[in-house]
Amino acid sequence: MKLEMICTGEEVLAGQIVDTNAAWFANTLMDKGIECQRRVTVGDRLEDLVAVFKERSLEADIILVNGGLGPTSDDLSTEAMALAMGVPLIENIEWRTKLEDWFARNGRVMAESNLKQALLPESALMIDNPVGTACGFAVKFNRAWLFFTPGVPFEFKRMVTEQFIPFVEERFAASSSVALKKLLTLGNGESALADRLEAIPLPEGITLGYRSYMPYIEIKLFARGAAAITSLPRINSEIKALLGNALVAENVTTLDQEIHNKLVNSGLSLCVAESCTGGMITSGLVAFPGSSSYLHHGLVTYSNEAKVKVLGVNPQTLDDYGAVSIATVEEMAKGARNILGSDYALATSGIAGPEGGSADKPVGTVAIALATKYGVHSQMLKLPSRSRELVRTLTTAVAYDMLRRELLGDAVIVDYSSFSRFSK
Amino acid sequence: MKLEMICTGEEVLAGQIVDTNAAWFANTLMDKGIECQRRVTVGDRLEDLVAVFKERSLEADIILVNGGLGPTSDDLSTEAMALAMGVPLIENIEWRTKLEDWFARNGRVMAESNLKQALLPESALMIDNPVGTACGFAVKFNRAWLFFTPGVPFEFKRMVTEQFIPFVEERFAASSSVALKKLLTLGNGESALADRLEAIPLPEGITLGYRSYMPYIEIKLFARGAAAITSLPRINSEIKALLGNALVAENVTTLDQEIHNKLVNSGLSLCVAESCTGGMITSGLVAFPGSSSYLHHGLVTYSNEAKVKVLGVNPQTLDDYGAVSIATVEEMAKGARNILGSDYALATSGIAGPEGGSADKPVGTVAIALATKYGVHSQMLKLPSRSRELVRTLTTAVAYDMLRRELLGDAVIVDYSSFSRFSK
Repeated sequence: MKLEMICTGEEVLAGQIVDTNAAWFANTLMDKGIECQRRVTVGDRLEDLVAVFKERSLEADIILVNGGLGPTSDDLSTEAMALAMGVPLIENIEWRTKLEDWFARNGRVMAESNLKQALLPESALMIDNPVGTACGFAVKFNRAWLFFTPGVPFEFKRMVTEQFIPFVEERFAASSSVALKKLLTLGNGESALADRLEAIPLPEGITLGYRSYMPYIEIKLFARGAAAITSLPRINSEIKALLGNALVAENVTTLDQEIHNKLVNSGLSLCVAESCTGGMITSGLVAFPGSSSYLHHGLVTYSNEAKVKVLGVNPQTLDDYGAVSIATVEEMAKGARNILGSDYALATSGIAGPEGGSADKPVGTVAIALATKYGVHSQMLKLPSRSRELVRTLTTAVAYDMLRRELLGDAVIVDYSSFSRFSK
Repeated sequence: MKLEMICTGEEVLAGQIVDTNAAWFANTLMDKGIECQRRVTVGDRLEDLVAVFKERSLEADIILVNGGLGPTSDDLSTEAMALAMGVPLIENIEWRTKLEDWFARNGRVMAESNLKQALLPESALMIDNPVGTACGFAVKFNRAWLFFTPGVPFEFKRMVTEQFIPFVEERFAASSSVALKKLLTLGNGESALADRLEAIPLPEGITLGYRSYMPYIEIKLFARGAAAITSLPRINSEIKALLGNALVAENVTTLDQEIHNKLVNSGLSLCVAESCTGGMITSGLVAFPGSSSYLHHGLVTYSNEAKVKVLGVNPQTLDDYGAVSIATVEEMAKGARNILGSDYALATSGIAGPEGGSADKPVGTVAIALATKYGVHSQMLKLPSRSRELVRTLTTAVAYDMLRRELLGDAVIVDYSSFSRFSK
């Protein structure tokens, strides 16, 4: 089976938006053992769309088309497909009824332009969209099945998961059985990880991949076929042993989620006092429904006055050691924890850059503390200073990792090969 | 001139990384008035690369190829191009010398594999890379010039800016002069905006585009040619007049940036007390260097106790009106402002979902207040509740907009066509 993707839309082609749908799609298929062989991105010109549908339908078995199903005049995917096939557009009564119901239920008047969304090429199979006004559809043309999906990310993702993948599995030989393990690492470069893991010989059918996304590197262990699947747990254990402290989570994509899960399950409470991370630790957790059950408060105390007035940091400490120091973050963490007697408090202070560095404390210098009922753990690190964003996301990740290790009963402070530590 | 892009690399095709090079490239060209008509993404298989070079060279005049110039075994772009043309690879003496100098200067031993990076297809023009070990090259094949660039983003961007764009401008008729206006809108759907703006007849050479990215919709007015450029200011004014309150900024991509710029320039200070937005308002601003000059503090007071203890909200207010109410957010804003006597304080409280809604206050209900030296402005809105993320980003955007309007001396509370307001 040869599978391709066609992405449509001026805004994607012209770089006005980064095509996250495409990356998500390929990644999701990969997890199912299905490979996408080519991706073509075109704009909203009718003749370009017609040309690419004709051309790729001669080469591929299945083509996922994304975008161009909306109500406006630059949404042309449906019309282009009908033109390519030389068939008329026919109103789909089922979808028209759904549209009318949807607008009625939401107390809104349906615009004339929405009626266009019920027009499909003759012979198309309508594909339900339970969360939007654009239905999908599938047509057989030349060698290929073309499967049309809306561009809105959450509508797209739902349609791929609930409809496209079953559609592919039903029509094409089920892919050989596959299994996948994901290991999330922090604080090591990709080549350093690869050098370390080279020592492990991989049995046939097992492949190792790296997905680098700031500030983590995810290791993907992919097994295809029964023999490979059987040996996967053993290989996984060997890799975990080699990774050591670099391994921070399994089968989740971020440490935020790992911390959220652990705190929800533990019944313990957290508060956060942030300076350089500026709310990133807090927002990472608030993104998950249910975070209110453990998150007492998150205080961004950017100025020295705020550190004194809100957290009770001693002005003398700020004078003696500076805002970016072990002494200050320890007082920040203790002060934050005392406000509501939370079980844990995380505090950060650092120089995110690009300005503000000095010889003693260059850009990338950050201090992080974790206060518990029994005391405070803290460290001051020199992080890579390539960008403000990177310093902030790395600081957030290390803070989460300290809390994660505390929750596991492990040593809170460990070495990360890419970061150097200031002595106290 | 027909320009296309070919992106290579398993990690891009398979979604392990999002292709930010492609978006940056198209966007950079667009701002120069050069359009990219198609983008093809393929993996690292030699036969796929050869096929796509042959195929697209028959259709396009100029093709930017990105990636596959590195030293490792999966870097195959150069070899594939030579195969497609049926020519041998020849060592480029100039680049080999540069490579040797570069390694010598950095006190490193050049690996054998780097020698590969000096091999180019016969007849190729070498393209200098002042910041990396992969030189670029250009070849004429069939109808097209193919221009090869490295995948590392900062090497790629420099080569495009300093070499590719002049290469295109030199070889092809200078593109007609272009001008661009960007209008950022909030609180209206794309189809509602399109319906409204249809009333304005666009002169030849002016096109209108929409860029929808949560929670904003950006309107791009693009003028090509002298006549169109002359009429652009008039059309821009007419569109702005029709947009009314929906227009929230010009020529910036987010309201965060607009607020940051205005606060930096005004010398006024801000603090933030967030509940449902969970730090999003604060982090949006902290992302900009220099935000410490105006941002006093950002307090995420998720629990009722935190609202009472940190902000001084009256427990009776919480009992009488609930956490999501005009009365509570007003006290949050006033309490936050009083801590350090900031000029402004923003406060939010809402039901982001998916749980926590009720008949009176369904998911999407949010209360927002802006406290100033002279009083408090507040409103309670019903926002679209499609996702937790959407409720939070919309709340953040409306809060920014209230402050923006205050900073301009405009009415703080205005109607947004997509949101309904609760009466007080």
